[in-house]
Amino acid sequence: METSATLALSQVPCLYPSKPHHSRVYPFSSPLKRRISQTTHLRCQKMYVPGFGASPEAKAAKNLHNFFTYIAVNIVSAQLESYNHEAYEELMEFLSRHSLNDGDKFCASMMRESSRHKNLALRILEVRSAYCKQDFEWDNLKRVAVKMVNESNTRLMREFISETSPADV
Amino acid sequence: METSATLALSQVPCLYPSKPHHSRVYPFSSPLKRRISQTTHLRCQKMYVPGFGASPEAKAAKNLHNFFTYIAVNIVSAQLESYNHEAYEELMEFLSRHSLNDGDKFCASMMRESSRHKNLALRILEVRSAYCKQDFEWDNLKRVAVKMVNESNTRLMREFISETSPADV
Repeated sequence: METSATLALSQVPCLYPSKPHHSRVYPFSSPLKRRISQTTHLRCQKMYVPGFGASPEAKAAKNLHNFFTYIAVNIVSAQLESYNHEAYEELMEFLSRHSLNDGDKFCASMMRESSRHKNLALRILEVRSAYCKQDFEWDNLKRVAVKMVNESNTRLMREFISETSPADV
Repeated sequence: METSATLALSQVPCLYPSKPHHSRVYPFSSPLKRRISQTTHLRCQKMYVPGFGASPEAKAAKNLHNFFTYIAVNIVSAQLESYNHEAYEELMEFLSRHSLNDGDKFCASMMRESSRHKNLALRILEVRSAYCKQDFEWDNLKRVAVKMVNESNTRLMREFISETSPADV
């Protein structure tokens, strides 16, 4: 398999903004300080991600933010369905008229709909905050995402090899 | 502000599948084992999230998976632009014809396009794996997401109050 076009990742220069590295040795800086400064510089091995006004983490967090609102609406609707069917119907009716793609916009519209809707919206805000901080398993998210990348990469390469290789006789 | 409809979160029963709690005391189980079992049961305070075949974490990981492919394509295109303009043009041309919404499908199509595209696709697979494991700041993601929920909730409530309260004289 040709891999000539593959650039070793460690060769990619780090273009993230970092503290400038002064080669000039200050008369009063200790050897330890200089060593730490050099180590910090050398350890910066991140790949340059272009085209982001915000960081990729902030963009992913924004998506998760809308996802948490969607989860909170699901949680609240399941709670209401079992003990307050009238409020549940109101929530469902509101959902049919408003998109949940932008969670904040959805909640803002709901607050202004009526007094009862306002209470529902406040509850959704409370639930998404509690869910994000307490219930959502952040470690599990990382574990599943890393596993997914590994498995997808292996599967894609295996499928390609099995398609392009001559069949076993 | 009315909050009567707001259910205290701690009252919501946990409906996540958990190990069954046996009240029967086994003759050979130690007191420590029984205590651990009870603690595990009592600490289960999670809210029930309906309507998910997979867990919310798996769904969020799937979204992040596609996001990592998008990031990897961005990284690779920025690298190619500076030292291999021909490959960069090929990548851009392929991008104009294929959607990046499904990252795996995008890579699978790219692998089958031509030998050069295959090398590009392999590189994208490698970069998304390295990015996910080494560069992406998972702790930062959690920090930003929690901060975003706090700030959005405060902002939404503040805007609503300022709109509905009589203006200061």
